[in-house]
Amino acid sequence: MDIEQDVKVGTLPKGFEWGAVKAGIKASGKPDLAVAVAPKGATAAAMFTKNLVVAAPVTVGRRHLAATGGRVRAVLVNAGNANCATGQPGIDACVKTCSAAAETFGCIFDEVFPSSTGIIGVPFPGEKVVAAMSALKASLGNTNSHAEQFATAIMTTDTRMKVARAVVDVDGVEVRIWGAAKGAGMIHPQLVAPTGPPHATMLVYLFTDLIAESGQLLGLLERAVERSFNSISVDGDTSTNDTVLLLGSGASGVKLSARTKEPFENALKLVCGSLAHQIVDDGEGVTHVVTLHVTGARTEAEAKQVAKAIAHSPLCKTAWSSADPNWGRVIAAAGYSGVEFDPAAARISIGSVPVFEAGVRAEFDKADAHAVMMQREYTITIDLGAGEAECRFLTCDLTEEYVRINADYST
Amino acid sequence: MDIEQDVKVGTLPKGFEWGAVKAGIKASGKPDLAVAVAPKGATAAAMFTKNLVVAAPVTVGRRHLAATGGRVRAVLVNAGNANCATGQPGIDACVKTCSAAAETFGCIFDEVFPSSTGIIGVPFPGEKVVAAMSALKASLGNTNSHAEQFATAIMTTDTRMKVARAVVDVDGVEVRIWGAAKGAGMIHPQLVAPTGPPHATMLVYLFTDLIAESGQLLGLLERAVERSFNSISVDGDTSTNDTVLLLGSGASGVKLSARTKEPFENALKLVCGSLAHQIVDDGEGVTHVVTLHVTGARTEAEAKQVAKAIAHSPLCKTAWSSADPNWGRVIAAAGYSGVEFDPAAARISIGSVPVFEAGVRAEFDKADAHAVMMQREYTITIDLGAGEAECRFLTCDLTEEYVRINADYST
Repeated sequence: MDIEQDVKVGTLPKGFEWGAVKAGIKASGKPDLAVAVAPKGATAAAMFTKNLVVAAPVTVGRRHLAATGGRVRAVLVNAGNANCATGQPGIDACVKTCSAAAETFGCIFDEVFPSSTGIIGVPFPGEKVVAAMSALKASLGNTNSHAEQFATAIMTTDTRMKVARAVVDVDGVEVRIWGAAKGAGMIHPQLVAPTGPPHATMLVYLFTDLIAESGQLLGLLERAVERSFNSISVDGDTSTNDTVLLLGSGASGVKLSARTKEPFENALKLVCGSLAHQIVDDGEGVTHVVTLHVTGARTEAEAKQVAKAIAHSPLCKTAWSSADPNWGRVIAAAGYSGVEFDPAAARISIGSVPVFEAGVRAEFDKADAHAVMMQREYTITIDLGAGEAECRFLTCDLTEEYVRINADYST
Repeated sequence: MDIEQDVKVGTLPKGFEWGAVKAGIKASGKPDLAVAVAPKGATAAAMFTKNLVVAAPVTVGRRHLAATGGRVRAVLVNAGNANCATGQPGIDACVKTCSAAAETFGCIFDEVFPSSTGIIGVPFPGEKVVAAMSALKASLGNTNSHAEQFATAIMTTDTRMKVARAVVDVDGVEVRIWGAAKGAGMIHPQLVAPTGPPHATMLVYLFTDLIAESGQLLGLLERAVERSFNSISVDGDTSTNDTVLLLGSGASGVKLSARTKEPFENALKLVCGSLAHQIVDDGEGVTHVVTLHVTGARTEAEAKQVAKAIAHSPLCKTAWSSADPNWGRVIAAAGYSGVEFDPAAARISIGSVPVFEAGVRAEFDKADAHAVMMQREYTITIDLGAGEAECRFLTCDLTEEYVRINADYST
């Protein structure tokens, strides 16, 4: 098993085709409509945002997965318009694009899975999507170049394509996973299975040629998402459109079994972990990627609660932007997280430099901590001294550039 | 009853003296040690931050109030060092400064109420405070100028003094309230009575010459704080030192009674409201002050939960900085607040301009909404359409200047 962040090697999962075109939705005129097709169909599992306010494609996508019992033939994604807070006209427009896609790609209506990302509250130009349908079909193919076109067209404020792949060898037969993601701002996914209230501006599509049922895929996906996409935050804003979709074409001929489950699950976790890392690394205005390793918690949930308080603290995030080892802001954020612990038993390290212990500043050379923080990426360890549970949470600094990007992203 | 934000008129409450000196704690060399003395003593009530990590003076101040049953003779405040995360040496240093103040101002040790604000985790220079004690005594007086010196010395990143006063007329006798506050960053007070886990970087001192017992003052204070200091946020970071102290000298000769309670409580609320507003208005990097008026909630707590999600959303705050009527970010933040409501029944207005209703963009002229948002101060109303409860929450925009201030505030 190996993991790579490019698609140069010709090992894409079998049973899928990808394509993309310019439909005229992005103001920039760049490719903005992508499709992934499983000509023989695929089993599917999806997780959506917990946000109460959801985009039309999330509503429609959930309905379709429920209607088919988890089968997908075509994934239709546009960037440039979120089709959110667009009311019944937004739902109607989404349905029309699904109908057109079903006709174009030769499947039933419910086998089309729609996604949108972009600005909220602007009427959705469904007619542009419908008009682009035959060009979209003509763009299909199964080469690396086709997959890259898919991964590029779904981008919004992303500065680069985000893809990852893994291969699992089962008695000489390869089972492949390839994933593509987009997302740079409004990143604090809180994904749940479609039973909860749904929603996503982070979009993730995972393709594999494993043979597995929809319910099996969902179990694998939930476990992989919890420690990847559900453990990152750029700005703490949970989007209305976050969606992670896992499709299994079955084209490898290898079944999910007691024997293949563990290596496959590990490979899926690696792909999700890589994509989650790429999202934070390409976060809006990011100059430092920080792993918060919270240890000594009573429960993993409490560890995560502490990590989120720190990850969402503007004071911690601005200190990271200037590589300032201001551990006082970190312990203060942990202190208001709502989790109980004894500050005198807590410890904080920046990289391998202890900065806080026994309730006071540790003996350390500020230059050492500063040197760690000058790196693009490092870890801050917060030991609560209260138990055995831990978590790793990936976040980033807050810079003037983040403010500029989001003050200028005008409606 | 009237309310003013200056102390030019000679109507300070009787029974108090104020003073301040340069003790050498602030790197700038500005006045950094302030004192307020009630020569005949005062009844007292205090509220402290909910943060689990608390500064030494918070620990000592709570202990002193408990020991005296709510009596204070001298309030000793330094700026430039928070005396937080300084361990037992921090407690010891705080105790020494209280001893020196007790000797200097002729009271018992427990009647000294200490406060600190500034950087966290730096050893507290108690000896500088002790050395300044006789100069501090010499600075005392009861004129407007003395009160202003107190209000100025407690400032840190504040750009201006924050004071407010009110006068209640009881049968020709004046009962006066004067308050001073400091705070510009790490502002998201969550104050509780000293029974809960305590802590504060917002410091507020309220002086009145009313006759009232400590327990009566606490009841008045809790109600006034809930809709003022507990309903504001600059950056969502709840400090380790937040403290609000209310002192009653009794020198007016007017008792708190069934007849005087209502006008006095109203006056206290006005003073607290004015100071809370001044804190947000002087928030770090602030260019717009925004009142979030959440209506139609099932409970006031839920209204506040929605307001806080919006107030802490970097995407909402950056949009406000550029006067962009991006209501999509507002409804998205409400959607992830954890409060249940039907987005199709919700409505949002910016000033008097409806921007969202019935689940979609309202018919409005973007220029009208933009014009409202170009003002220094305006209101966004979020009607959840779910009930009758409401709240008003005061917050501000997020600017590049905020990032600069907090990236540069180095340890």
